[in-house]
Amino acid sequence: MTADVCVLAYSGGLDTSVAIRWLHETKGYDIIALAVDVGQGDDLEAVRSKALRIGAVDSVVVDARDEFAERYIARVLKANALYEGKYPVVSSLSRPLIASHLVRVARAFGAGAVGHGCTGKGNDQVRVEVSVRALAPDLTIEAPIREHAMSRTESQAYAEAHGIPVPTTTLSPYSVDQNLWGRACECGVLEDPWQTPPKDAYAYTRDPGSVLDPPRDVVVTFTEGVPSAIDGRPVTVAEAIVALNEVGGGFGFGRIDMIENRLVGIKSREVYEAPGALALITAHRDLEDLVLDRHTHHYKARLEAEYATLVYNGLWFTPLRRALDAFIDETQRQVCGDVRLTFGPGSCHASGRRSAFSLYDESLATYTGYDTFRHDAAEGFVKIWGMPAEVWAQKSRAAGGAADPVLAVEGSGATWDE
Amino acid sequence: MTADVCVLAYSGGLDTSVAIRWLHETKGYDIIALAVDVGQGDDLEAVRSKALRIGAVDSVVVDARDEFAERYIARVLKANALYEGKYPVVSSLSRPLIASHLVRVARAFGAGAVGHGCTGKGNDQVRVEVSVRALAPDLTIEAPIREHAMSRTESQAYAEAHGIPVPTTTLSPYSVDQNLWGRACECGVLEDPWQTPPKDAYAYTRDPGSVLDPPRDVVVTFTEGVPSAIDGRPVTVAEAIVALNEVGGGFGFGRIDMIENRLVGIKSREVYEAPGALALITAHRDLEDLVLDRHTHHYKARLEAEYATLVYNGLWFTPLRRALDAFIDETQRQVCGDVRLTFGPGSCHASGRRSAFSLYDESLATYTGYDTFRHDAAEGFVKIWGMPAEVWAQKSRAAGGAADPVLAVEGSGATWDE
Amino acid sequence: MTADVCVLAYSGGLDTSVAIRWLHETKGYDIIALAVDVGQGDDLEAVRSKALRIGAVDSVVVDARDEFAERYIARVLKANALYEGKYPVVSSLSRPLIASHLVRVARAFGAGAVGHGCTGKGNDQVRVEVSVRALAPDLTIEAPIREHAMSRTESQAYAEAHGIPVPTTTLSPYSVDQNLWGRACECGVLEDPWQTPPKDAYAYTRDPGSVLDPPRDVVVTFTEGVPSAIDGRPVTVAEAIVALNEVGGGFGFGRIDMIENRLVGIKSREVYEAPGALALITAHRDLEDLVLDRHTHHYKARLEAEYATLVYNGLWFTPLRRALDAFIDETQRQVCGDVRLTFGPGSCHASGRRSAFSLYDESLATYTGYDTFRHDAAEGFVKIWGMPAEVWAQKSRAAGGAADPVLAVEGSGATWDE
Amino acid sequence: MTADVCVLAYSGGLDTSVAIRWLHETKGYDIIALAVDVGQGDDLEAVRSKALRIGAVDSVVVDARDEFAERYIARVLKANALYEGKYPVVSSLSRPLIASHLVRVARAFGAGAVGHGCTGKGNDQVRVEVSVRALAPDLTIEAPIREHAMSRTESQAYAEAHGIPVPTTTLSPYSVDQNLWGRACECGVLEDPWQTPPKDAYAYTRDPGSVLDPPRDVVVTFTEGVPSAIDGRPVTVAEAIVALNEVGGGFGFGRIDMIENRLVGIKSREVYEAPGALALITAHRDLEDLVLDRHTHHYKARLEAEYATLVYNGLWFTPLRRALDAFIDETQRQVCGDVRLTFGPGSCHASGRRSAFSLYDESLATYTGYDTFRHDAAEGFVKIWGMPAEVWAQKSRAAGGAADPVLAVEGSGATWDE
Repeated sequence: MTADVCVLAYSGGLDTSVAIRWLHETKGYDIIALAVDVGQGDDLEAVRSKALRIGAVDSVVVDARDEFAERYIARVLKANALYEGKYPVVSSLSRPLIASHLVRVARAFGAGAVGHGCTGKGNDQVRVEVSVRALAPDLTIEAPIREHAMSRTESQAYAEAHGIPVPTTTLSPYSVDQNLWGRACECGVLEDPWQTPPKDAYAYTRDPGSVLDPPRDVVVTFTEGVPSAIDGRPVTVAEAIVALNEVGGGFGFGRIDMIENRLVGIKSREVYEAPGALALITAHRDLEDLVLDRHTHHYKARLEAEYATLVYNGLWFTPLRRALDAFIDETQRQVCGDVRLTFGPGSCHASGRRSAFSLYDESLATYTGYDTFRHDAAEGFVKIWGMPAEVWAQKSRAAGGAADPVLAVEGSGATWDE
Repeated sequence: MTADVCVLAYSGGLDTSVAIRWLHETKGYDIIALAVDVGQGDDLEAVRSKALRIGAVDSVVVDARDEFAERYIARVLKANALYEGKYPVVSSLSRPLIASHLVRVARAFGAGAVGHGCTGKGNDQVRVEVSVRALAPDLTIEAPIREHAMSRTESQAYAEAHGIPVPTTTLSPYSVDQNLWGRACECGVLEDPWQTPPKDAYAYTRDPGSVLDPPRDVVVTFTEGVPSAIDGRPVTVAEAIVALNEVGGGFGFGRIDMIENRLVGIKSREVYEAPGALALITAHRDLEDLVLDRHTHHYKARLEAEYATLVYNGLWFTPLRRALDAFIDETQRQVCGDVRLTFGPGSCHASGRRSAFSLYDESLATYTGYDTFRHDAAEGFVKIWGMPAEVWAQKSRAAGGAADPVLAVEGSGATWDE
Repeated sequence: MTADVCVLAYSGGLDTSVAIRWLHETKGYDIIALAVDVGQGDDLEAVRSKALRIGAVDSVVVDARDEFAERYIARVLKANALYEGKYPVVSSLSRPLIASHLVRVARAFGAGAVGHGCTGKGNDQVRVEVSVRALAPDLTIEAPIREHAMSRTESQAYAEAHGIPVPTTTLSPYSVDQNLWGRACECGVLEDPWQTPPKDAYAYTRDPGSVLDPPRDVVVTFTEGVPSAIDGRPVTVAEAIVALNEVGGGFGFGRIDMIENRLVGIKSREVYEAPGALALITAHRDLEDLVLDRHTHHYKARLEAEYATLVYNGLWFTPLRRALDAFIDETQRQVCGDVRLTFGPGSCHASGRRSAFSLYDESLATYTGYDTFRHDAAEGFVKIWGMPAEVWAQKSRAAGGAADPVLAVEGSGATWDE
Repeated sequence: MTADVCVLAYSGGLDTSVAIRWLHETKGYDIIALAVDVGQGDDLEAVRSKALRIGAVDSVVVDARDEFAERYIARVLKANALYEGKYPVVSSLSRPLIASHLVRVARAFGAGAVGHGCTGKGNDQVRVEVSVRALAPDLTIEAPIREHAMSRTESQAYAEAHGIPVPTTTLSPYSVDQNLWGRACECGVLEDPWQTPPKDAYAYTRDPGSVLDPPRDVVVTFTEGVPSAIDGRPVTVAEAIVALNEVGGGFGFGRIDMIENRLVGIKSREVYEAPGALALITAHRDLEDLVLDRHTHHYKARLEAEYATLVYNGLWFTPLRRALDAFIDETQRQVCGDVRLTFGPGSCHASGRRSAFSLYDESLATYTGYDTFRHDAAEGFVKIWGMPAEVWAQKSRAAGGAADPVLAVEGSGATWDE
């Protein structure tokens, strides 16, 4: 293991470009740049070359799009994972994947350190570092941006002084992260939560107000909880997401504007776009409504919130995530079938669903059978179901306390529960 | 108490009209009809007269709209109650209110029985009967429709034979229930879950495809968790709902098409419209994101699902509902502020929020203060936060088991968790 | 399939003996008696013969002790399942097993019906019937005791009139059910919850007040969550239970006296004895404390309560149970190691534990390593951890509301939260 | 506010004695020592004098025993709070109380800082600091032990060099913290989790093996969830705890030996003694079993674990704790009645319970009433309750998948769920 080699997660942007030089000059590392393709849509060959020009001793690009789709996105989709009920853990999900590739490349090159460009204010430092430590506790972790905390002006000055190319185009006013599963946008004017997000905050979705297309139906087929066909055409998970990003984005669907609780103790205002993710979760939930029995459905709903929080909090490579996945996978065996999504301007909803494993069936022979005895059965059920409430009311009344419900209801204006 | 007087929840429709006569003829009751105004929009004076014409000895109309809004809807709004994540417990909520008025009228008239027109297949029988038994366990409960189980044709024949007026207009193919908080529609073609709901299934909302209006902003002000002003104009809770039903409905927003798990053990396909309810819950949640701290936010989210299920399951008049409300009310003290909703065709989202109790504040003096020490604090936090995962990885590795993460990652294609 | 053959779960007692004859005479069934050995300690060969003497056309005994231990008890042990925090689901667990054997025998003999001797007041009817319906929805289920509801005197009269042997010994004043995992006792004087249970209510345990033995240590070894050795001697799960029933019972440990909520809506007072079950759960939990990380530990604790309730409620043969087991099995991979239990009169506790997968290790090299940076790390952690509470306090103060914590604390006697 | 005055939580021990001098010499503070009486049993007047001798400018003793009992312990008792199912949050509970008195004294004296003697390895630093920041975010917090991290030898040398009295008696090998609610003991030989705790680790309880007394009954009366009488004699909460500490400790009851997950990411081995706490929780739970309906009971059980974790994690002065207390208080209205505890050597259990609000009553008139219709009601209930499982089994069978339960059961040895 070479203690003075550091594999740096490299995006091609200003901060990680400065980091290549800074880590070398300040800490003496030979830097290997690593760019991981998670569907962000950048020209990664250009990114690879740029790292070398700046001074990396080596530069690696990994196409992890299918791995990301099959082994990360498929799981959060089966979990219907939405942090705080809204955010489909877009950036949260790519960080452990990137961390695992940092470790792989470090092992392949015998490096003793890995580095990342996360700041000290966000969640991503947690996700990358906890993942690296779970996978390779012996590696040193460098966090130059957090450690050195240069302002943007200082970064530019440093870049110019060291001959690092600075983008000549106007810098975005936002901090953006994007991948196959969605796009995150923060900072700038968005820091005022009362301000409506301006149009230039969006890139994955059209302005819904400009959509003139008529509504469009898309049928998504699921096999064991993951998409396997779109409108009858077989697809990989990655292809399904790309297809629905395109359709949904074209209808201006998939925007999220929210205040969220970061793990590091502060609230932030985030604008996300995730047309494919939200469409797929909508369809997946709808199919589950049809094929999961009530007990499983209700329990899984509670587990889903935990799952999303766990992923958001950077705990991907942990025993709990594996145990939750074991639960989820067991529930997905029968999540097979079709859901028809209807897209309109800024909207997407399920308008039909069917499955060989449907637990709803109007023509089910026994359904009519139940009808014949439903009268007695239902009456008996209601009697037993309501017995605790009735006994409670009777005993409270007998005990005379303030809880006597009948007196309360009879009273003038006074009511049961006050 | 007069054992042979029965107060019947009366809607004016065929079934409860037949029930008036049937309960009298078969069981010897004198019937007092009770129609409760929960915002369903019917001509209740006409309903009142009709009951008398059919043979009720007395007929009562109660305007419970404000009671419904203030004492029932306000609670489920504070709870963001959506059964199975989707259904704003529209009918579930009116049933205990109606039951409480059945009991009040029974007490006022000294009646020994109350009656309702629910079938044996649905949830409403549970909600009405459990509520009556909690409030007045001594009353007899009559459920003529469940007991006698006439088909629609038989009901019509019975009605004609007894001179009961039958609506001359074509009967709706659907079974509909509506109130201030929304509208439920089932049966007919909707029983095929693959079928897109036809346009005539909707009444509270325009077809989103026909909306040509430009997007519209509405600012909702909340005071301790309930709406207190719309666009700056003070409103009651009921007025807020009416206003947002109108705006939202006009944009075709608020439709829900779902498969749901009934308490009585079967799945059903339901189409709901709840523009005001969904708009208010959207706004309320958004404001909570701003003013509730993370721990309270996450705990309350779990409680909300329980609350919705409890209400759906007919357990309104129970000690658990009161205890959950005590929790919720405590959290709502600071849920005060403004949310700007933006309506488009078929859509509504929050585009801005502000509050004196905001826990997000870009200009918060101490925020910058944190910045000064964030580097160390964050690094320390990440170290402690990730320690269990790291220790676990180290120990697993030392113990040699299959769980060795590093070997797995290094392998060709093999990965951490397989 | 022979519609007029019924396989009856037969215990040899008065009720099911009467049921053999009654089902034949009243409903025309040929009865096949089935006695399942779940470790209840009865002479099942005698039970088998008795059924034939009374009139069964066939009589079968199945030794299901190891199946019960390996496939049922092992699961609830891994789940630390205690209904309402106290009851190790003793009877709840044998019912689905018995139901599965009813179905197997019915299939083997081509019978069209199965029967059981449960009353209409208890939980067991639910457990047996839901299990049969999940396994073989086509079978008719007979519940003669619930249907006919003979009093004990009537049963005796019926028995005498039909030449059915009645036990000559005095009948127990209690209703008892026992198996490998424990013993349940109810009725008689126990129906007064204020009454201390008399000594004759117990059979698996000595009176703790009469125990004069000195404390005794027993080391239980677990492999993937199930006991594999006692004091170094390899054991099957069934043998481990038998051994600890003996040791624990000899110390008067394992008695439970509780008021419990039945699924059918009423409370009952139950006296249980489960020395082996409680000792194994104590040991298993203690080992989990050592080898499960905090997140998994806390999540699993919540799941355990659900698991126990699900089993108690008769939902063994359901998809949710399988999914919960998938979660649990994943967590048990590293639940391997030794726990030393110390037994005293009426007590048992863990006094030592060790494991190759221990996440606690005083000599762990990195532990000292953490020490070197703990100062900064801990300080940073505390800063971040407490930030939401601090921001909340600051904002509440600034907003001036009643929540101002400082003023409250300063006040005369008034405090923060009132 | 005087920035150079610091109120230090002072115990009289070596570490905080050294801290008085060190904070003065190193940071220039005038120190006001504060000793809070939470029932630890020390001579606090001597502690007060000692602080002055060492150099504190002022020294204050506050008797907070009743405040601790009424406003802290009563709450965790109503919550049956046991962290990780075992630990009655003994030290966790006194820390926010002590923090509130630090703030009060700081305000009274106009001090600008408060200090504590917690190390960087434990939970107490979190509890004290988060509480202070919630109550008085403007105060500086000094943590000299964490900051300076002297070894014990260094502390002694420092003490001798500065004329600080060092206890002449042999120092305990353990780190101990005790109060009214219990006693915590760690370090020394206990750091080996396999080692049985030696006898000198205990102080609140006799060795159970040496107890020769016959079993003893004690009747605890509760009023709205808190103890109000012992054997018929009215008591305050503090008196009830003292009385049961004495009885329980005399029987050797109340010892806990556990591995626990600290908030700061490590596991520790802890030995606790809490005879009064565990006896009161046993009694309180037992009474709740009698008076809480099932839904409330089951929901509260889940909340209790959250409550204990929240208190353990130092989040006492937070909105979530207040909201949870609102829930709990609502449930305690009817937790009134008597529980008979039976103490034996090393054990304590409830052997009888009664209440005017009991939901169990063998003589309840309606109970017999239910009997008359139980047959039908129970049969109907079971039908409805089992319907989801049955429909699921039928549909799985029809869909042919691997889940066909009937084929599986029929197979040779193969079973339903494999």
